[in-house]
Amino acid sequence: MIKIIVDAFGGDHSPEVNVKGVVRALCETKDLYVVLSGDQEKLQALLAGETYDKDRLEILHAPDVISCNDKPTEAIRTKKESSMSKAFELLRSDASMNALVTIGSTGALLAGAVLRVGRIKGVKRPAFCPVVPTAKGGFVGICDSGANVDCDPLYLQQFAIMGSLYMQKNFGIAKPRVALLNVGVEEEKGDALRKETYQLLKNTPSINFVGNMESRDLIRGDIDLVVCDGFSGNVLVKSTEGACMELMKMLKKTFMSSLKSKIGALLLKKDVYKLKDYMDYNKYGGAVLLGSAKTIVKGHGSSNDEAVYHCILQAYTLEKTKLCASIGEEIANLATQA
Amino acid sequence: MIKIIVDAFGGDHSPEVNVKGVVRALCETKDLYVVLSGDQEKLQALLAGETYDKDRLEILHAPDVISCNDKPTEAIRTKKESSMSKAFELLRSDASMNALVTIGSTGALLAGAVLRVGRIKGVKRPAFCPVVPTAKGGFVGICDSGANVDCDPLYLQQFAIMGSLYMQKNFGIAKPRVALLNVGVEEEKGDALRKETYQLLKNTPSINFVGNMESRDLIRGDIDLVVCDGFSGNVLVKSTEGACMELMKMLKKTFMSSLKSKIGALLLKKDVYKLKDYMDYNKYGGAVLLGSAKTIVKGHGSSNDEAVYHCILQAYTLEKTKLCASIGEEIANLATQA
Repeated sequence: MIKIIVDAFGGDHSPEVNVKGVVRALCETKDLYVVLSGDQEKLQALLAGETYDKDRLEILHAPDVISCNDKPTEAIRTKKESSMSKAFELLRSDASMNALVTIGSTGALLAGAVLRVGRIKGVKRPAFCPVVPTAKGGFVGICDSGANVDCDPLYLQQFAIMGSLYMQKNFGIAKPRVALLNVGVEEEKGDALRKETYQLLKNTPSINFVGNMESRDLIRGDIDLVVCDGFSGNVLVKSTEGACMELMKMLKKTFMSSLKSKIGALLLKKDVYKLKDYMDYNKYGGAVLLGSAKTIVKGHGSSNDEAVYHCILQAYTLEKTKLCASIGEEIANLATQA
Repeated sequence: MIKIIVDAFGGDHSPEVNVKGVVRALCETKDLYVVLSGDQEKLQALLAGETYDKDRLEILHAPDVISCNDKPTEAIRTKKESSMSKAFELLRSDASMNALVTIGSTGALLAGAVLRVGRIKGVKRPAFCPVVPTAKGGFVGICDSGANVDCDPLYLQQFAIMGSLYMQKNFGIAKPRVALLNVGVEEEKGDALRKETYQLLKNTPSINFVGNMESRDLIRGDIDLVVCDGFSGNVLVKSTEGACMELMKMLKKTFMSSLKSKIGALLLKKDVYKLKDYMDYNKYGGAVLLGSAKTIVKGHGSSNDEAVYHCILQAYTLEKTKLCASIGEEIANLATQA
């Protein structure tokens, strides 16, 4: 049985979407056990209308919520009755608990991961690894996307190893193509951090390093994992997301601009919806915090129930494929080689 | 008379597009004088079929070309007969020359600017400032977009001042809204560089600082200038460009996916072209190297003749509005305040 704690609060549409996501995951996955953390009364009311295996769902009563206005570290320390604090406390204290899924505050998640769960032995810094769909129909991972704004080359080397294992386990890519985010593709490009990291990655036998990558090639689909510091990774993920969203909005406006365009849009509707669907983050899970001692998945704050469902499935897959153990082994190997 | 040196080589479609762009600029702007640097014979052959005021065009013979495979600094130093080297040499030695426009190697341009032209007094580092169209129909400048991968807070403060003046002069924005690129909007977000820069910008009276900005909001249109280090600025510009390009390609594929969608696309053609047009960098000039002692405009390597024309017009406008002098004044004021 895979046991996953799901934080039921903290997202824009919580707890409704969390409850629906959990119910769907329980129905579709028979060896999944869920602990839903949050206000018992509210959760029971929402669960009342749902059909699921009651033996595999448990509520962890937590009357309080951490909001995005709370100071993250302070909130994890002081809001002890919050759904996220209690979720982390259970993940820490109960060895049988495998993973945690939340769509709440990213900062609080990071604080909880560091203060309550800790790192896999040898891991210098846990890092976020979200994925973005590519033009070729696959996904590209970005590690780190914001957990570490200050990085050194050894962190980035570990991000490459962890992210590569993640793309293997979660997407079944045998030898993920790993690239370093840089301002040009030539080996000598970039600042001191990039130059040193390039040499390190070139000499890391466990990864398939293919060189530098410019951000314009992110979604082309020729790379499986992009390695970067958390600052530029954050810029990369959010600008790609922002550009796609704004462009889709402009397109919609274009479709509505004249009678002729409206008729055209009507004929195209199904096909354009396919494109929109394809870019919809609700369909492919959240960002994993790689290097954390237990599997932690962070979904988008505006996740719908489908997104929560996919985040749970993702945590389940990573437990089934033993990502944390593999990361531990590879990081230990790296230490032996050094 | 505004005298602009145009490097006729180095772009993907050079020298044809450069010559056509120059001819159009000369015809439309009566107090413009152009020195076209490049192989005399080739340029004369291309000019033979064109109609323009011959008294306002001069060829600076330069038989060699700097390619993007050349090492930039070395190329500027050793390829003395190249179109870009000779252009920079003339810009340096002839006080009557106002500006330089090129669509050649960015690295060589930077080397030429530093080695031949120098900085405006008090400017610590020249910075590239390209613009990107926004969803509201305007433009947002990004400074620095790649000239300086390593930055300190004082550089960023100067980028803010120079970029703000540029958005005023080139786009007529009275009080450009200046934001700092960061991983979140709250004042305390980011690394040491961002935290220090935030405080500096807050206390720079000559700019209209509106706080931090996340990269996802770049093209929404609420900001006129984004201040960033050259590494993350490069990631920002190229990922936005890359996402828009890939999405337009996917859209095209969608349009062609069925007979129904093809008919729909036909009806939409004119309106979607408007959207495509709107995102076309060929229509709005190049990146200015702010802080350089003379106006230098860098167009996209794949520029067409319209793009070259707009780059020349941009250099012309910046000379008419005396951008370099204004930057010198503001930077001197800043030194007095400190």
